[in-house]
This record gives sequence, C-alpha cells and structure tokens, in this order.
Amino acid sequence: MRMVDVISKKRDGKELTTEEIQFVVDGYTEGKIPDYQVSALAMAIFFQDMTDRERADLTMAMVNSGETIDLSAIEGIKVDKHSTGGVGDTTTLVLAPLVAALDVPVAKMSGRGLGHTGGTIDKLEAIEGFHVEITKDQFIDLVNRDKVAVIGQSGNLTPADKKLYALRDVTGTVNSIPLIASSIMSKKIAAGADAIVLDVKTGAGAFMKTDEDAENLAHAMVRIGNNVGRQTMAVISDMSQPLGFAIGNALEVQEAIDTLKGEGPEDLTELVLILGSQMVVLAKKAKDLDEARDMLKEVMANGKALAKFKDFLNNQGGDGSIVDDPSKLPQAEFKIDVPAKESGVVSEIVADEIGIAAMLLGAGRATKEDEIDLAVGIMLRKKVGDKVEAGEPLVTIYANKEDVKAVEEKIYANIKVSDHADAPKLIHTIITK
Amino acid sequence: MRMVDVISKKRDGKELTTEEIQFVVDGYTEGKIPDYQVSALAMAIFFQDMTDRERADLTMAMVNSGETIDLSAIEGIKVDKHSTGGVGDTTTLVLAPLVAALDVPVAKMSGRGLGHTGGTIDKLEAIEGFHVEITKDQFIDLVNRDKVAVIGQSGNLTPADKKLYALRDVTGTVNSIPLIASSIMSKKIAAGADAIVLDVKTGAGAFMKTDEDAENLAHAMVRIGNNVGRQTMAVISDMSQPLGFAIGNALEVQEAIDTLKGEGPEDLTELVLILGSQMVVLAKKAKDLDEARDMLKEVMANGKALAKFKDFLNNQGGDGSIVDDPSKLPQAEFKIDVPAKESGVVSEIVADEIGIAAMLLGAGRATKEDEIDLAVGIMLRKKVGDKVEAGEPLVTIYANKEDVKAVEEKIYANIKVSDHADAPKLIHTIITK
Repeated sequence: MRMVDVISKKRDGKELTTEEIQFVVDGYTEGKIPDYQVSALAMAIFFQDMTDRERADLTMAMVNSGETIDLSAIEGIKVDKHSTGGVGDTTTLVLAPLVAALDVPVAKMSGRGLGHTGGTIDKLEAIEGFHVEITKDQFIDLVNRDKVAVIGQSGNLTPADKKLYALRDVTGTVNSIPLIASSIMSKKIAAGADAIVLDVKTGAGAFMKTDEDAENLAHAMVRIGNNVGRQTMAVISDMSQPLGFAIGNALEVQEAIDTLKGEGPEDLTELVLILGSQMVVLAKKAKDLDEARDMLKEVMANGKALAKFKDFLNNQGGDGSIVDDPSKLPQAEFKIDVPAKESGVVSEIVADEIGIAAMLLGAGRATKEDEIDLAVGIMLRKKVGDKVEAGEPLVTIYANKEDVKAVEEKIYANIKVSDHADAPKLIHTIITK
Repeated sequence: MRMVDVISKKRDGKELTTEEIQFVVDGYTEGKIPDYQVSALAMAIFFQDMTDRERADLTMAMVNSGETIDLSAIEGIKVDKHSTGGVGDTTTLVLAPLVAALDVPVAKMSGRGLGHTGGTIDKLEAIEGFHVEITKDQFIDLVNRDKVAVIGQSGNLTPADKKLYALRDVTGTVNSIPLIASSIMSKKIAAGADAIVLDVKTGAGAFMKTDEDAENLAHAMVRIGNNVGRQTMAVISDMSQPLGFAIGNALEVQEAIDTLKGEGPEDLTELVLILGSQMVVLAKKAKDLDEARDMLKEVMANGKALAKFKDFLNNQGGDGSIVDDPSKLPQAEFKIDVPAKESGVVSEIVADEIGIAAMLLGAGRATKEDEIDLAVGIMLRKKVGDKVEAGEPLVTIYANKEDVKAVEEKIYANIKVSDHADAPKLIHTIITK
C-alpha cells in the first residue's frame, strides 16, 4: 500500500477501507508516514469528508495506537461526560459528585487546559492539598468505594491523535467534523468509557458558533460512539453567554458547591440536571430520565451530593472543609464592581470575549507554561434577559491587581443593554443518533 | 504573516495576495516553511483553484526563487517550444534546426527525461560525440552564429518548483491545473524565453486524457505567459496514438532526419509545420502563418533545414555525417515484425501502452539511475485508419534481446483492428488566450 494512493483516493471522494485507515494511523504513529503526506490527507478529508464507517475506523485506529485504560475492575457502567468547552463551564465539578451520590461510578481522567480558565484539575487545585497524583490502583479502589475519583492524564493515550492534532493545528485542518469527532471520541474510549454523554456547546463562546455546526459535530460523535459499541448521546447547549455566573477557578468551585446544594445559578443547575439524568439512565441507576431527575434533585436537597464532594476532596488530599467554609478558597485582593451605564435589559454577553477578560486577569493560560492565578476571575451579576438599573453592577471583577481598566473596557464592549431581550434557550437539542 | 492563515484562506476559497504567494514560495525555498504546510496548501489549491492573478504570481515567485538565464546577448526574439509530453514525440528534434534555418534563434536548455523514451538530450546522444556540456558563452556564440544550440540544464533554475514538484508527487497534488501550469511556465520563463509556443497533447498517451482537461491546461499556461509579458499560444494536438512512426531514441533521430527532408510521417510533418509557423511568426520572421508555413516547406525542400541539423550536430561535437548515412546511428541486433492476426482497418493504437512496450525494450528510464539503450524501440508500420492485411506487420520491434514475448503481447493487446476507423484529427484546437 502506498500513502500517495490513499491520499489520491480520498481526494477523489472515495471511501477508504478499514485497512487503509489502519495503514495511515499505524504508519503515522510509528513515524513511517511523514507529516507532509498526512497533512495532505487531512486537507483532502476536510473537503471530501468521511463516511460513518470511516469515522468509526479512524477513531478505533487512534484508540489502538497507544495505551487504553482498563476500568473493568470498577463495578458498574462507567459513564463519561465530555464538554466541547465554553466559558464558565462548571458542569464537571458539579456532575462528578452529583451522579456519584447516586452510585454512578465516575472514574475521571482529566488534564490541565489552555483557555479562559484552567481545566478541571486546575480548578480542583484551588482546594488546598488536593492532588491527582494517585496510582491506578488507588484510583480504582476509590471509585469502587466512594464512586468518584480523578486521576491525571497518563502518558501514552491515543498518540496518533496527539500527533495528528498538533499537525492539524498548523495546517488549517482543525475545522473538519470527522477529524474533530474522531479526536474527541478516541480519547474518551481510550480512557475506558462504557457510555458517553456529550455536552456540545453552541454560540459565541463555543468552538461551534452555529446550531447547525454543533448538531453536525454531535451527530458525528454520537454515531461514532454507537458504531463502536459505546452508548453515546449529546446535548446541544447554549454558550452564547457564559454558563452560570462564575468565570475563574476558585469562583467556579464556590459556584459548584452552591449548585450541589441546589442553590446554584438557574442555567447551570438545569444543565447538570439534564446531563446528569442522561448519565444516571445510561448507568442503569434509574428507569427513565424523569426518575433520574427526581433522584438528582433529592441528593441536592438532602445534602448527599455535597457530602459526596467533601468525601471526594478528602480522599485526594484536599481540605473538604471548604465545602462548609468556602472562604478558605483562594481569595482575590480586589473586588471591583462594573456598573451599568444605562438602565434597560441585558441583551448580549459575548461569552468568548468575557472569557478573554478573565484570562487578562490571570484566570487561564495561553501557553502550557503560563501560571494560573486561582483566585481571580469575573462574577456575572446579570445574565441575558435580566433587568438592570444604571449604576447596578453588571459584573464583579475579582483581581489581584488594582488596575483593571483593560478588563473593564472589554466588559463594557461585550455586555449590551437594550430595551428588551429574552433569556436564550439553554438546551437547543438532544441528539441520540 | 503565518502560513497556517494562508492555508486557511485558500481552503476557504479566498484569493491569496501577491505578498502571501511570495511569502509561501520564499519561505519554502529557504526551508522556513515545512513540507507539511505546503502539502496542505497544495491540496487546498487542488480543491479551490487559483485565479489568473494568483497563477501569474505563483509562476513569477518560482521564477525568482533561483537563477534565471539571461539570453539578451542573443539577437532576435527567443521563442521556446514546450510539449507536455507524449509517445514518440520527435517534434523538438525537428523543430530546432527547422526554424533555425529561417534565422529564428533556438537557445534550448534541455534535460534527460523519465518516461517511455529519453529526453531530447538522450536522443541527441544517439549521435556519436554529441554533447551538451558547453559553457554559457559558447552556447550564446553558437546561437548568434548558427541560430541553434542545446545546453544541459543548469543547477539552480526554479528551485521552488523542483521542491514543490517533488512534494506534489508524493502527496496526491500533481493533478492540479494551476500547479501544473505554473510549474511548466516558471521553467520556460526562467530559461529565458521571450515568447512560448506550447504543444499540449491530449488522449491516451498524454498526461491530459481529455480535450477539456488539455484545453483547461492550455488556457491556464497561455494566460500566465501573456500576464507576465511573454507572448504565449498553445496547440492542442492528438496523442491518442503515438506521433509519427518511431518510438525509441536512435529511431526518432532517423525519423527527424526524414522529416527535415520533407519525407517524414504525415502527422509529425504537419505538427512541426503548425508549431514551427507559430514560432516563426512570434519571432517576427514572417508576417503571417501562411507565409511562415511556405518558408518552412521551402527549407525542407531545398535542404537548408537538414544542413542546419548537420551544422548543429557538428558544432556540439557530434558526427554530422549521420545525416547522410543514418546507418551510423546505434543499430539494434534484432528486428522483429509483429504481424496482424486479421485483416481490416487499424482502429486503435493505445499510445501510453505502446510507450511502455518501448520502455520494456530499454528505450526509456523508470528511475534516474536507469541506463537507456539508444538503439532499441518500436517502429509503427500502420497508424489508426490504415488498412492492414492479416500477416502484414503492425509494428517492427527493434531489440537487443531475442525474447520479446512480453512486448509482442503488449502490442497485440493495444493495437486493435476493426472493420472501419478514421484517422484521428491531429490538431484539436489552437488556444491564444
């Protein structure tokens, strides 16, 4: 088999065989097929797409290019949740203890993130002592005993995906549905998921800016999952404005605690109930979504969800008492309200720009080497559709520097007040095939 | 400027600026832009095409990526001819002395070829002593004195094109009109042509298999030439069957001699008169094509064309007496007729397959290291539209081995005899814009 023939075949719109896809992924992983051939193939895929069968084959070839995590020692159906990423997205922090409180095993492998705020691990490290450097045996024991644990990303999962992603990033081939979908799904599957709940964000703060794009990506991932024997579904959720109020690491931990108590922001609470219900049903802990939702609301109301979070933090060296006394979380030195200049209704909060404002404060990292300031961030005080009086705060800036002029300017430029506006619909669609 | 942005721009169907194209070509030539980005761009160009302006810019950027040949010391308008390549294509060997006999300066830089038979230099080396290792000053003096000389390809013409071509060859991006057209035109322009006559072949033996593809390529090259100030025109000529009778190096030299005497095959003679007339008019040695054609026929008839060939050979160390005694050319040991199995009319001679048959005998090279056997080849005895009786030879094989079974089989498989067939039209179209 010659790589140039595989490239030409895809270029001409033909379907690659399982063997051809295997040849490409194996050859690339082993360094036998050079970058310049793979980038040409990726561009051909950008234009000619892949069939469902090709996408499933590409995903499994990438899964098998490296180690896979065997979670069979954990009892029950391991349901993983994946979000395509947005601004102020605290769902993982809430969902992990929330569904674990219903005995759904949450064996989460997580990483540090580039972006507006840190990844899940960064956020958890806002809690003193918390760490993810545990052995695989400890990890499995913890999940079996307490149903929830988080471990840092292991070395050699999906090396083909890592190499391909880095190449796509510099060759204009990131934005291809089959390549995005197989990249995400290969990582979830290699990490040992039996079933997968996807939270695909749409809108200004999301990678997918339109519902159409988000739905295409969701269908692609759901089909890959189901085609390779992992029950998968996706929720398309709004990311035109940030989710919840908090954007920043410690701020989001605080917000997660509130939400686990049933006192969180309306949109975040609703999204975790929707996603959580799906997870509980997939894990066969409830007979349908209504029952699952009732069960989730019950553990929020009776304190079991919060207690699970506390146990989870204590289990991994963290100070679980922050659940009762959140003032132990890192605190910013300055809290600066940004008041509305006019009265009216908030009509737009441009999510990605507000995310960048948080990054300017130090809440996120632009490169792997950047240090995150866990205390800083932005708390929204109003959301789209809320009435506001001139002088009332639109947001509060949590900063460790006094001069936040650039951040204020960004906020004024990206929060609009008009005569009338409705709150955006949170859940756009549910995709199951 | 970032290469990934240039790739993405072209991927999205936008027109690249002159500066962006310059950035790509310069960066690639200097090794600052890696292969994997250029192959992705080439694939994006395959799908999104380039405008006339982009094609002209790409061509000139490749011209300026290395040395250019300054032919200003040669008097008159330097008209170069380029053929897109076919089987048994003896036109250059005939045209060079033919138009030189009318004082059109022919300053030809030529190379060794991969393919069914050798390149022009290989063919000329069938003449004992002939060589192209002359200095640039000798070359210019010869053209000024005798109007025709051939020099070997110099080192550093269009290095960007060399690098890009090698990359396209292994990344499925050869077959792109803007990339093919700019590659060919950059080489002609760098080699010093003031005006260019293109012979674009179409049919089974050509790179372009259909008239539509051939016309698209011809228009692309003609527009590039005219847009960068080199008067350019193209003739689309038939390559469904081989041109002339001879396929093989010494055999083609013999055929060139016959043609220069006005005794060559009808199709080859017609094609050199058509192309030659264009060259003579572009060089302003005749007022129109009719006058040019008459002048060319005159030098064929009065022996001046043949004398010019003789002088040309003698000037570069060759034995010019082969013109009078072609038996001095390398002779094959075996001449084997391949007789028709049935009577009828020859209806098809699949050019590329007959070319491969000649290569099997040793007439061409598949890799740069292969040695060519100058004596061997195939002489067609019939062309499409000719009547043939069972037992009459279809071709004569000139071989230096006795066992030519594989070659005979290839010939029978690719020369068809039917009830009726017309000779194909030789000149399909003339393209001037």
